[in-house]
Amino acid sequence: MKKPMDTWRSAIAASDDTHIWIHGYDVTDLMTRADFTDTVFLLHRGRLPNVGERRILNAILIAVADHGAGAPSCAAARLAASGNRQSLSAAVAAGILAIGDEHGGAGSACMEMIAAGSELSRTHSISIEDAARRIVEEALVSKKRLPGLGHRVHSTDPRKAVLFTLARREGMAGKGVAFMEALEQAAHEKIKPLPINVDGALAAVLYDLGFSPLFGKLVFIIGRVAGLTAEVAEEYAREKAMRIHIPVTYDGVPPREID
Amino acid sequence: MKKPMDTWRSAIAASDDTHIWIHGYDVTDLMTRADFTDTVFLLHRGRLPNVGERRILNAILIAVADHGAGAPSCAAARLAASGNRQSLSAAVAAGILAIGDEHGGAGSACMEMIAAGSELSRTHSISIEDAARRIVEEALVSKKRLPGLGHRVHSTDPRKAVLFTLARREGMAGKGVAFMEALEQAAHEKIKPLPINVDGALAAVLYDLGFSPLFGKLVFIIGRVAGLTAEVAEEYAREKAMRIHIPVTYDGVPPREID
Amino acid sequence: MKKPMDTWRSAIAASDDTHIWIHGYDVTDLMTRADFTDTVFLLHRGRLPNVGERRILNAILIAVADHGAGAPSCAAARLAASGNRQSLSAAVAAGILAIGDEHGGAGSACMEMIAAGSELSRTHSISIEDAARRIVEEALVSKKRLPGLGHRVHSTDPRKAVLFTLARREGMAGKGVAFMEALEQAAHEKIKPLPINVDGALAAVLYDLGFSPLFGKLVFIIGRVAGLTAEVAEEYAREKAMRIHIPVTYDGVPPREID
Amino acid sequence: MKKPMDTWRSAIAASDDTHIWIHGYDVTDLMTRADFTDTVFLLHRGRLPNVGERRILNAILIAVADHGAGAPSCAAARLAASGNRQSLSAAVAAGILAIGDEHGGAGSACMEMIAAGSELSRTHSISIEDAARRIVEEALVSKKRLPGLGHRVHSTDPRKAVLFTLARREGMAGKGVAFMEALEQAAHEKIKPLPINVDGALAAVLYDLGFSPLFGKLVFIIGRVAGLTAEVAEEYAREKAMRIHIPVTYDGVPPREID
Repeated sequence: MKKPMDTWRSAIAASDDTHIWIHGYDVTDLMTRADFTDTVFLLHRGRLPNVGERRILNAILIAVADHGAGAPSCAAARLAASGNRQSLSAAVAAGILAIGDEHGGAGSACMEMIAAGSELSRTHSISIEDAARRIVEEALVSKKRLPGLGHRVHSTDPRKAVLFTLARREGMAGKGVAFMEALEQAAHEKIKPLPINVDGALAAVLYDLGFSPLFGKLVFIIGRVAGLTAEVAEEYAREKAMRIHIPVTYDGVPPREID
Repeated sequence: MKKPMDTWRSAIAASDDTHIWIHGYDVTDLMTRADFTDTVFLLHRGRLPNVGERRILNAILIAVADHGAGAPSCAAARLAASGNRQSLSAAVAAGILAIGDEHGGAGSACMEMIAAGSELSRTHSISIEDAARRIVEEALVSKKRLPGLGHRVHSTDPRKAVLFTLARREGMAGKGVAFMEALEQAAHEKIKPLPINVDGALAAVLYDLGFSPLFGKLVFIIGRVAGLTAEVAEEYAREKAMRIHIPVTYDGVPPREID
Repeated sequence: MKKPMDTWRSAIAASDDTHIWIHGYDVTDLMTRADFTDTVFLLHRGRLPNVGERRILNAILIAVADHGAGAPSCAAARLAASGNRQSLSAAVAAGILAIGDEHGGAGSACMEMIAAGSELSRTHSISIEDAARRIVEEALVSKKRLPGLGHRVHSTDPRKAVLFTLARREGMAGKGVAFMEALEQAAHEKIKPLPINVDGALAAVLYDLGFSPLFGKLVFIIGRVAGLTAEVAEEYAREKAMRIHIPVTYDGVPPREID
Repeated sequence: MKKPMDTWRSAIAASDDTHIWIHGYDVTDLMTRADFTDTVFLLHRGRLPNVGERRILNAILIAVADHGAGAPSCAAARLAASGNRQSLSAAVAAGILAIGDEHGGAGSACMEMIAAGSELSRTHSISIEDAARRIVEEALVSKKRLPGLGHRVHSTDPRKAVLFTLARREGMAGKGVAFMEALEQAAHEKIKPLPINVDGALAAVLYDLGFSPLFGKLVFIIGRVAGLTAEVAEEYAREKAMRIHIPVTYDGVPPREID
């Protein structure tokens, strides 16, 4: 006989016959007195945000929602929609699966780097600028990329200035913003101009808001799903199934016989 | 030689070296002057919502965000996180894959039924109440379930009253709300008490807001991803990998030899 | 208090401290005395195949394994691998999500059509040829496509002749093969030349082997995962992350200001 | 104007109007003269296997196909099938997403450890036994688990002996098998009895067959998809949608008011 499964435990949501609670708040109260961004914050932090926190989280979710159908996440969602019209979930999920350290997920690594830089500054009693310099030097030695700097498309990411200005106006710019600006400066001096990209910008402000590094990736997924659902809806509405065939050049062995 | 792929087309988002636009709005304007719910609306409708539309969409997204770790979507996400700690995307995607007509997706079918009821009323010059009665009778004959009515957990879903009250207060309750209330009444008379559930409630108000039926499913995915990301983060933070083993009783053929 | 979950039940596999059984056979016996295709058959049918059944299932699995990196399933897997190098599972899963009625999944619908044609022949005491003619006529009236006929790429699919020849040589060609040949003939007479494609061919022989329609889709997934894993491995080995950007032409509203 | 996408390249499969080739072999030749396991080998290695290689790959694929519905991969697939009956692909994909380093994926890490041990033996001119001892000592110091040793369920995994016996009988046991046996011995001496598990066994023989570490994970996905498809088919056939509700105990903050 197998023993029965242990009951799972969770501190997020609960429900009974006539109620649903999220971190203790009745969902009907949240529906009338909070907004969706508040709820995202609540789900991940266990409390509702203040005005500044809400504004910043809003700006981040918008920043990553979509920038074109050709990004790996959007294109993977459209390919799934092209071959499989039975499940909207399948298409959206395919899009999410293309999100990783390389696409949309650098925020997590960047938050870990900020935490390391902040720790370095504290334990060695050095300035945040000196900590940033050391991290740039280490990256040069180990030939690793610095997360949060540089961008494939945008020479200067327009979203970074908005996030940093907003964080300052709300009085929430702290070590995260300071470290990333110092890092950009140090990289400029020691390597080449590598402007802060959107991953670096959101990592800085999420760090200052007290989020854990995991959230640097999760926030991209939450924001991008708004875009992915729209991309899938457009694919259904405007395109025939199986419209997509990627052209491929075969460069393998020529035709041959089985011995 | 393969011919090159036709360029894809999209009317959603575009970018150049220093800009990103969503339906023509600069993303930096959206980040400072709109909120994430506005952006969800914009991505799916091509325009920004008015105050009432934003409030209603907010309430729907919150309503479906989470109601406990044991729902198929949340549990599938946790199982994936339990076996695969290399990819947050993989865990969130597994959760989304459990969303379908049976779990979270009934809103789409319900919106199609509302459209059919509305069309029946118009083409046969009958009241919306009579149209609802006919649809209940047809469901009885064909032994099909009526989408949007009845619930496994909640005898009276607390989220329905909030959505309908909000739609009325904002002056946006129309045929969708009227049809679903008539349907609930007709089902009560001809079958049994089958209160409007959250899928039926969100379908009614989304219909009145002019959304297409596909969005009845997509809105659940967008809202639920807030909860799924929190469930996955809690699994990572509180539980060891491979903690979950579902107890299974084998009821197949007994051990045997290969002939 | 929540009540504990009911134990699940399954007739497929069981294990204890020193054994694993699949439908009663010890996995160590299967490992030494059966092959993987036998095991696929066993898992889905509850018994081991005879020689002819094994040969035919082998041929089908090989037929669908891969035909190029540009198909939606392979391309979606590569896009996920391009953005997310943390999880091979995520990339393979993205590829599987592109499999549906439109891509690789027509076998299921075709098996259902064969079953309907066979039932029509039996209940109306008409020949299988007449049943096929009626189904072609119905498709013409309802303007529906006939599953299993016609192909986007191959004017004559080379895999069909192999499967039908093999089924005949093994003495296993029955109503499935007869119906599909009659359907191809009837479509030629009443519509245009529409040769049996690989979905139609595998549906015919799987029907004759006694598989259920669901397996018409599942067999494609099992076979294709061999190709998807190879495509993902090649993407990892030969290509840099984020190499793929699909070119997209924006055809939406021009830049505008928020009112 | 966006520039057109570069054509992708692939050395795996190609097709024209009447042919499909996999690594140069016509798929119709493979269908009649090879089996599916040959094709898996071909797709991943670019050549057909000899008899011994085929037998060993067969045994591995069978070994990992399924051992019960409660494993994370099988349970995630069933949860997705429970909430979403529109897409078999979605359910199978959800199952695959639960496969990672912790569940089914340890073969990759183990193959990397074998390669490191082999390199250590070569560069330091020490025996494979001494290399294994050093790696155990390093694991003790760094408090890391040794991949491929120990098991949650099976005290002695029955599949290991079958794989090693088969590799020896076929004359294909090499450094992989030798290293894993030395590692088991060294772990026994320095830590505690930690028998080689199925991941360790398949890693050893795949290493000796010349596969790359990535394949240690991919082979599990290929084999397990046979089981996942059967689990999903059984869920569809025997269970109602939404039958599964995992019991969860809420241990978060009690109900409270929004300030």
